[in-house]
Formats: sequence, structure tokens, C-alpha cells
Amino acid sequence: MAHNSTSSIPLEKVRIQDEFWSEYIRLVRDVVVPYQWEALNDRVPGAEPSHAIRNLKIAAGEEQGDFYGMVFQDSDVSKWLEAVAYLLDSAPNPDLERVADEVIEIIGKAQQPDGYLNTYFTLKEPGKRWTNLAECHELYCAGHLIEAAVAYAKATGKRRLLDIACKFADHIGTVFGSEPGKLKGYDGHQEIELALMKLYHVTGKDSYLQLCRFFVDQRGMLPHFYEDEFKKRGGTVHFKDLAMSHDLSYSQAHLPVRKQETAEGHAVRLVYMCTGMAELAAETGDAALLEACRKLWTNIVTKRMYITGGIGSMAHGESFTLDYDLPNDTMYAETCASIGLIFFARRMLQLDPRAEYADVMERALYNTVVSGMSKDGKHFFYVNPLEVKPDVCKINKAYAHVKPVRQGWFGCACCPPNIARLLASLGQYIYSFKDDTLYTHLYVGSRIEWETDGQTVNLEQLSDYAWNGNAMFRVNAAKPAKFTLALRIPGWCKGEAVIHIGGYKYTYDPNQVTDGYVKITRLWQDGDVIDISFPMTILRMKGHPSIRQTIGKVAIQRGPFVYCLEEADNGPELHTLQLSERNELTTYFDSGLMGGLQVIQAEAIRTGAEDWGSDLYRSDAISRSKNVTARLIPYFAWANRGVGEMSVWVREST
Amino acid sequence: MAHNSTSSIPLEKVRIQDEFWSEYIRLVRDVVVPYQWEALNDRVPGAEPSHAIRNLKIAAGEEQGDFYGMVFQDSDVSKWLEAVAYLLDSAPNPDLERVADEVIEIIGKAQQPDGYLNTYFTLKEPGKRWTNLAECHELYCAGHLIEAAVAYAKATGKRRLLDIACKFADHIGTVFGSEPGKLKGYDGHQEIELALMKLYHVTGKDSYLQLCRFFVDQRGMLPHFYEDEFKKRGGTVHFKDLAMSHDLSYSQAHLPVRKQETAEGHAVRLVYMCTGMAELAAETGDAALLEACRKLWTNIVTKRMYITGGIGSMAHGESFTLDYDLPNDTMYAETCASIGLIFFARRMLQLDPRAEYADVMERALYNTVVSGMSKDGKHFFYVNPLEVKPDVCKINKAYAHVKPVRQGWFGCACCPPNIARLLASLGQYIYSFKDDTLYTHLYVGSRIEWETDGQTVNLEQLSDYAWNGNAMFRVNAAKPAKFTLALRIPGWCKGEAVIHIGGYKYTYDPNQVTDGYVKITRLWQDGDVIDISFPMTILRMKGHPSIRQTIGKVAIQRGPFVYCLEEADNGPELHTLQLSERNELTTYFDSGLMGGLQVIQAEAIRTGAEDWGSDLYRSDAISRSKNVTARLIPYFAWANRGVGEMSVWVREST
Repeated sequence: MAHNSTSSIPLEKVRIQDEFWSEYIRLVRDVVVPYQWEALNDRVPGAEPSHAIRNLKIAAGEEQGDFYGMVFQDSDVSKWLEAVAYLLDSAPNPDLERVADEVIEIIGKAQQPDGYLNTYFTLKEPGKRWTNLAECHELYCAGHLIEAAVAYAKATGKRRLLDIACKFADHIGTVFGSEPGKLKGYDGHQEIELALMKLYHVTGKDSYLQLCRFFVDQRGMLPHFYEDEFKKRGGTVHFKDLAMSHDLSYSQAHLPVRKQETAEGHAVRLVYMCTGMAELAAETGDAALLEACRKLWTNIVTKRMYITGGIGSMAHGESFTLDYDLPNDTMYAETCASIGLIFFARRMLQLDPRAEYADVMERALYNTVVSGMSKDGKHFFYVNPLEVKPDVCKINKAYAHVKPVRQGWFGCACCPPNIARLLASLGQYIYSFKDDTLYTHLYVGSRIEWETDGQTVNLEQLSDYAWNGNAMFRVNAAKPAKFTLALRIPGWCKGEAVIHIGGYKYTYDPNQVTDGYVKITRLWQDGDVIDISFPMTILRMKGHPSIRQTIGKVAIQRGPFVYCLEEADNGPELHTLQLSERNELTTYFDSGLMGGLQVIQAEAIRTGAEDWGSDLYRSDAISRSKNVTARLIPYFAWANRGVGEMSVWVREST
Repeated sequence: MAHNSTSSIPLEKVRIQDEFWSEYIRLVRDVVVPYQWEALNDRVPGAEPSHAIRNLKIAAGEEQGDFYGMVFQDSDVSKWLEAVAYLLDSAPNPDLERVADEVIEIIGKAQQPDGYLNTYFTLKEPGKRWTNLAECHELYCAGHLIEAAVAYAKATGKRRLLDIACKFADHIGTVFGSEPGKLKGYDGHQEIELALMKLYHVTGKDSYLQLCRFFVDQRGMLPHFYEDEFKKRGGTVHFKDLAMSHDLSYSQAHLPVRKQETAEGHAVRLVYMCTGMAELAAETGDAALLEACRKLWTNIVTKRMYITGGIGSMAHGESFTLDYDLPNDTMYAETCASIGLIFFARRMLQLDPRAEYADVMERALYNTVVSGMSKDGKHFFYVNPLEVKPDVCKINKAYAHVKPVRQGWFGCACCPPNIARLLASLGQYIYSFKDDTLYTHLYVGSRIEWETDGQTVNLEQLSDYAWNGNAMFRVNAAKPAKFTLALRIPGWCKGEAVIHIGGYKYTYDPNQVTDGYVKITRLWQDGDVIDISFPMTILRMKGHPSIRQTIGKVAIQRGPFVYCLEEADNGPELHTLQLSERNELTTYFDSGLMGGLQVIQAEAIRTGAEDWGSDLYRSDAISRSKNVTARLIPYFAWANRGVGEMSVWVREST
């Protein structure tokens, strides 16, 4: 690690106990991961078969049959194993571990003698390995396998999967590289870069770092590898609808990565790539690469991100479009893309602990990600609209990809296992440290063990941050420990944090605040208690004036949550509601609503059609406006009360 | 003709001389029709070849080669001939007539001995005639041939093309019908219905009426013909992207036409169908059919039409979607669909002279249709957006079909020849009559000869209606003539018409106004002058509150013209402009602007980003708003000053 970076607290040293998040993590453990196991084994009635385990068994010689599924079907098994590993990190589960070990054995048998591992090519297109990197996801699947292997080794101490992954990575290193005779190619869907960095960190083997650097450096270079391989393989195309081999920006291969200044193409690919780049830059101190990460970050968060932390303004290619183009109803804003944005944010935070990174991480986490999964853990959003009119989605094909209710498991489901592995590893996102400074990025109730000042310090966090903006920290240390507690002041509270230490108000100097973190350095005593609270003002958020889809509109935010109007509370035709800058907003906790939600009420005006008549357009319209009370709920909780309209942005009179 | 209907003035009895329209008609005569002739003969440099004349020559045995083009390529030649016929109706042109006669000879030779005529099936799929009505446009092409034939016979008195058409129609009558052994099918793209009615009117042959009735009655009946023929031909599909054989509402075949209450599917198909239905209902007095026409009309104009007279809310299938779903930026609103709406409106007007039909006809004509063609007659809009941001159209695929500039001729260009035939026959849309009442539907400068009260009355109309809302009528009659002049009061003027007769103000009784027409019955003297003028108030139009895309917005209209903001006048980011209900709107004629345009100026507020900073969203935004003068031009004139943003609907503060 380059000396400027912060480090994560190892996952096994973190126990989450949080009013808001524990339930989601429990869902992942008790429902999502077991359910996904059934799905991977084609035992979910009514769901499209996954065939992923079968593919592996066939490749392992244990069963007979043909490959079935997407070219990246293997990655589902790896993501499942990665989530399993994080769960095992948090709590032992011998039954689950045994199942995982069995799968790992099958994976081992499916691995080819030279280390290659991919059931699609092994079973369906033997001899065509590495002939279509632009489209065929071999390196992407390898990356997910490596991530699973690293997580599983950390969690269980077992090296079997790690050995498989290393053998595969070593094989990849014999195929790709700048040396003569090796392919000058790189992955069509970025993932292996960040995975190789993990593998490097866990093994210390420099070749993995070098391979990662090769892939990062090679992307977008001329002559263009995708064009060359396209010609070489005779112009065959795997995905007919997307010109992956030619639309170079789709996989961010239109320019060398250091020259990319705007977030282009498939959103998940971009943020996965940036995650790998940031990790590599952190390790190598490559300033130009770090600068490229910063530029892409800035472009995303200042010009191409939804207020919910969603990214990807169009369905075609699940892609970014251009600055300030943020349609609320035709967008994609894939759950996986927001998860990738969180990965990217975390790596940037590690490089450079600035609250702006954590702010975006929090925005994506508390809104798009948690919205992505239903409270039963079995239904998921892939697309995360900010405005939905269900009957229109059904009929107007411009909205065909937008679903007004969470969907069941897909045959190849990218988002559900991604949610699972993120939430199962949420403990890694709360803190990071550098030397004797502990940065608190997220206010999530938890207990950690941290080695500092020559001893193990236990730090307990009690939080009702989500709804009330409070967190309490308690230090447990055998002897007094000198360290700095750096507490993030979220962007939304505009610096108005109130801190108490041991019950006494703690007034901090502006000099103590660096990049959005209040730093408190002390010789902490066992039992010391630090309270921090943020004013939970209801915020009337506006979009940058260049966003044509939000002008004249307001979005309501309170704490980390963005709010929305739903038909269940407000009736249909949500667009007829208008808020006013002058009207009061009130809030209360409705404990009976979906297990408890902080609700916001607003005096609003509703334009009615009562006196309008049958004309479609008129110049002498008498719009009867009446005063109504609008009710808003947090965005993440939408679509839990039947099919109905939803809208985040509401018209506002000034 | 059923006794309630009005009749058109024959085209050869109408001469248009209008400040606004004459130039467009001249363009059709001098540019569009000659240019299309070059295009049909593949002589337009840089344009995709049409091959339409070559296809006919090959089918006629005059040339060797293969069919090339769309399955409906023949219809381009027919539409051209129809436009030529209307031009010949207005003024002799021996050179043009000679060229047309030559084409007609080729068509005659291409006709098969049994009367069948379609170069696609004759050359490319012989033996597959009538096996794919859902997709393959044979009856559509037949319809256009018939329309051309009827027009050409009327204009020139020559029967050659009419004989060809009758022979083809007779052949179709042997193939389709309720008798045993005949196909129970109907056209996948409606057109032949209205054409058969024209053929019936010109020939008086009842079999054409019966065939039309068969097609109208058969549509949507069960068992479903499209499904049957699909199975019968082994499930082949002609257009892969559209499920024409199965998406029955696409071609309005989801229900018997009398049971259809909403405008569904492909917009052009729907309005062509309605035109035929209305014509049939007028002739037969079929009340249920007329009622179906009224229902579909009402659904379109009160729930599914743009303020510009555009129809078709989505690009996919160029189709209607659902009530009040009128996106301004992703819609299709094809020029041809608005032309079809004008056809439908005219037939409804003939059935039932109500100003509401003429209002819609005028709206479509003065806005979408005339916008469809550039001032050079060589560039055309197929898609007519109400809001355009050119850089977004280039990158965000949700807008890929929206072009910010008029396009050159396509290989198979539907809209340009449709504009040509409509404008060349505009004289048929101005008046209609019943007994001794002459209805004035459009205020277009013209001179007509009308047989009434036992003599030929010449009625001259001088109009500067488009810009100033005035029209003057002068009666020329050898002897006094008793008749009723019914003058339409446009919906936009809210009944505030001022009439002078012989220079004296004429006060009319409310009883004289029927369905939006002031009826003045007199013994008119030679030289009588009637002036009518309408207040050209600048109207602030609002959309029905159920339209989510127009709520909180205003569209400016003056006279028949809907206005728009353009970047050329107002700079980029048009969405940052806001009008106020309280601010004054002024207007002036800018004679230097695109040959002269009435311009509207509005005091407006522009939201600037100067003090905003780099955040994408903020709760403490200081939006600097400054007062600016917005300039609006008529919608039809947009996209003539380079590539730029355009918007019809403007945010409005109340």
C-alpha cells in the first residue's frame, strides 16, 4: 500500500449491530444466499434455470450435458461464494462452509490442466479461448473467481480456491502481456483489474500487480485490440444487439484510461474499471492514474449521477450518456452500477479520506442499493427509476425496461448476488485507518477491534443515524490509548455536527476539520463515550440548473435518505402535485409502515381536472387547485404496496 | 353519397393564391415532384437508390435485373403520380403529363395478365402472393395505385391508369371476400379502404364499395386471419423487429373496428383506416361505423394528440401509446400520421360539418405538416418532436430517432410524397358544400367555381389569415344567387369573429352559429364583399392536467400557429427559461426572418448556474434568475438556422 492510503479494518474484526442495516444483512444470510444456492442449482420453481452449478459439474466430468446460460454464467457461482465468505467472516456456519467447500472442489475439477477455467469455452467453444475479449467475459469471470477466492481464504483460512485462482491468474499471465507472443488484449467487462489487486494483496506476488497494470495500461491503445481480434476471428459477433467490438466507449476502450475525462459507456464497467485503477494507483503511487480516477469521479458525481446515487442515463447499453442528461423515467440506473460506484468510492476514500467520497457512497447505499432488494429478500430491482407510471411502462416501449415492481430471480442475475456480497461485507465500509487515525465513514452500529498504540482497542458504535442522525462511540481499551478519531460530517448537514464527549459538549476548532472529518486526538480511556449528532433538517434539494429534467422541481431529503411520492399515499397522477418553497414540511416516524419508516408530510397543491372539460389543450383553462397534504416516504421503500406511480422529483412553486 | 354529407369542390374548380400556402405549393410543383422523379429513377447523387421505376421496368420486361427496395416500394411511384395528377388539375403541364403517361404505360406492362400488380411479389417472391397480408403491403400498394389512378383520370380525363387500377381491384375482388374459397383477409397497412371508396365514387361500381366494406368488416374478426396465415406460411416473418403478425393492435386488428374505442397501434394505419371507415359510413349511412369513427376521433383529439397536431407517442412501431401519454422528446409524431389525421378530419367534416374537425385539420396542417418540409423542398422531417436537445439526440439512444435537422430523401421515403400529394390537393380542403350551403373550413386565399342556385358562382377568397386573422370573400355571379355562406369560427378565437358585409358590420344571431360555423343566407349580388376577422390574441395554451409532460408549462399559440423557443434566438439550455402568467407577450412581423415570420416576444426569467458551484444537487442553492426577453417563432419554422435546441412547451410560473 502506498504510504498515503488508509487501510480497512479486516472484516472478521467487525460485527455489525445496526437498527437499519442488521435486518438487511440477516436477509442476505438467511434468505438471499440460501435462495441463490437453490437458484444456482435450478431448484427455484418458476424461475428460469441458472444451470451454473450444472455447467461446472459437466466441465468437471461429474455430469453429462451441454453448457447452458450466458457466456458469463460462471460468475454467478463466484459471487455467491464471495458472499458466503463474507458471511463466514462474520459468524461461523459449518453447514454453509461445507456446501461451499464442495462447490470449490467441483470448480477445481473444472479447471483445465493449464489453469484455464471457464465452462462456456471449455464446454461450448473449446479452441476459441481468448478470441473475443470484447464480448465474451472470460477475464470478467476470472476476476469474480479471484475475488471469491481471496474472500474465502481470508474467511476460512482455506487455500483450495485461492490456489485455483492463482493457477488461473498465472495462466492468464502466460497469455497476456507486453512480451512478444502474448496477447495485447484486455477484458471487455472490467473486473479482473480490481480482483488482481486483491490477489496481489493477499499473496504479495508482484506478477499479479504487473498483470493488473498491463490490463489497465493496454486499454484503449492503438492499434485497437478489439478491432484486431474481430478481424482475426472472422467478424463473428456474440451479442447481436450491442456493437461491443466496435462501440469502443461502451467498454471504456475508446481512449487510454489516463486520457479519459468523462464517464462513458456501460456504467458498471466504468466504475469497476475505476475501482481497479484506484487500487493500482494506491499501490504504485501512479499520480497520472490517480488523477484519471479523480477526473472520472468528478465527472460522475458532478454531472452524471442521480440524486439517489444511480448512474447510467440510458437503457441502451446500460450506459452513461452525457453531462447533465438525467432523465428520471427512461434511465437505467442499474443497482449493480451503484454498487460499483460504492466500490469506487471506497477505494478513493482509502486513497484520500475525503468526506465527499463517503457522501456519495452513503447516497448510493441508502437509496439505490437498499431499494434494490425487497423486504422478503427474493425480489430485486435491476433498474432504478426516479419516476414511474406503471401503465405507461407497460405500453410505451421507451419505458419497457422499467419495472414498477421488484422482479424475481433471473436466469443470470447480476444484481441480487452483488447486493448480497456488498451487504455481507458492509463491515469493510464503515471505517478505515491510517497510522493512529481511525476514520469513520459510515454511521453504522457496529463493534470493531483495532490495533493501535500497541494494543487492541475495541470501539463500539451505537447508531440511530439513519432516522435520527445520532451515533455514539464507546472506547474499550485495556489501558489508555492515544489515537485520533476522525468523524465524518456528512455533506447534507452542512457542517452542523454537535459532539459530546463524556456527556460534555465538545467544541472543535475549524482546524480540526480536514476534508469533512472532525479529528479528535486524545489519550482515550476505557469507557470513554463520544456522541455525535447531526441536525435532521428536511432538505429541499434542487438539481443543477443544467439538468433539464429537474428544473423547477424539488426532491426531499432527510439525513441520508432521498424521499419520494407514491401513489399508495397520494393517489394517482403524482405529477399534478406541487410543493411550495413557503410551505412547511413535517415528519414523523410511522412504526406501522413497512416495519417503520420516517415519513414526511408536505402541504401541497394538486391541480385537478374537474373544471377542465374534454379539451386536450386550452387557453382559458380553469385549473382548480386544491390544498392537499402530500406524504413522502424514503425512496428505498417504494414499490412495496402494490403497483403504483412513484416520483422523486416534485414540481415546486417559488 | 348519403344525404347528410357535404361534397368537395372539384380540384380543377379551385385555384389557390395565398400568401402563406402558394409558396409551398410552388415548391411541390417546381422542386418536390421533379426531385422525387429523379429519386424514383435513382438519379439523386448521394441518396440511397429508390429503384422503384427500375422495379416496374423489370416487371414490365423492359429491363433485366432484380427487385430492390422495400416490399412497399411501388407505392412511391403511385404517390408521385397522384401528386402529379393534382398539379395537372391546377394547371396544364404537357411535359409532366407526358412523363406520367410513360410511367403509366410501364405500370400497365408490369401488370400481370390476371390483373395482379406488385413488383416485389412478381419479381422476388412469385407464388407467394397474398400469403403475408399482415406485413407485406400488397393491398396498401394497390390502394395507392388506385388513388393515383382516380386522381389522374379526374385531372386528365385519361382512363389508362384507371383501367389498370380497376383490373387490379377486380382481381382483388376475386381473391378476397366472404364467398367460399376466397381469402377472409385484409390489409396489414390500411389504405385500400379509402382508395376503393374513391374508385367507387369515380366508377360507380358497387363491387368496389362491397370490397371496401368486406375489408372494414373483416378486420379483427376471429379466428384471426393474421394468425392463420402465419401458420399457413410456416411462420416466416418479413419485418423482424416488429411482431406485425402477432401484435394485432399494431395494425388495429385486435378488435372488429366497430368495437375499437381507443386509437391503438401504428398511427398512420389508424388514421388511414378511419378515413376509409368514414367514407364508407358516409356512403352507406352505417351508423355503427360512423359512431366508431367518432369514438376514435374523440379519443385521438381529446387524449392522444400533440398540440402541434402530431400523433404517435412512441418511436417503437410509430405508434399510439395510451391516454395522456404525450412525451415531447421521445415521441414519433410522424409527418405522415398528421397527414392521415387531416384525411380523417376532412372525411368527418364532409359527413358532419363541425368546426372541431376543421380545427384539428388546421392544427396539423399549419404546424406538423408544414414543418415537415424545408424551404428548399428537399429536406423533410419524418419525426416531429416538440422538444429537442441535439447533443442528447446524438448520444442517448432513447432519442435516436429524433433528428434535429430535416433529412434528405430516403430510399423509400413515405413522408415527402405524402406532403406533396396533400399540398398539391390543398384546394379540396378549403370548402365543402351541401345543397345551397358552402362551408368554409380553411381560410386559404383562393378562387372557386361553384354550381348553385342554377348558375356558376365564383367565390374569391383573399386571406391573410395565417398572420393577421383576416379573410375577405367576393362573390362573382352573373345574376343574384341565393345561397348560404357558412364561415368557420376557429376554436382558438373563442367565437370572437367580426364580420363585415359590404363594409358594414354584420351582427349575427347566436342561432346562426351551428357547430362552429356562422351561416349567412342571402340573395348574394355580384361584387358582394364579406370580410371576416378573428382576434389574433396571443394564447397561453395549457395541456390537460392529466398530461404529465405539459403540467406547469405553457405553449404559445397565435392564430393557427403554435410557437416554439429556439436556441438560435434564445441561446442553449432552453429549459432554464420560464414565462410568467403575469408578463406581457408582444408580437411583430419580422420580414427578414426566413422570408417573414410573425415573432412573439415574452418577458421571461432565466435560471442561471453562475452562483451554483460544482455540486450536482444542493439544498442551499442560490439560483440566480435574471430577466430576459424570450423570442418565439412558429413551430413550423424551426430547424432552419443550424442545429440547436427547440422547445414548444415552456415552464410557467403562476
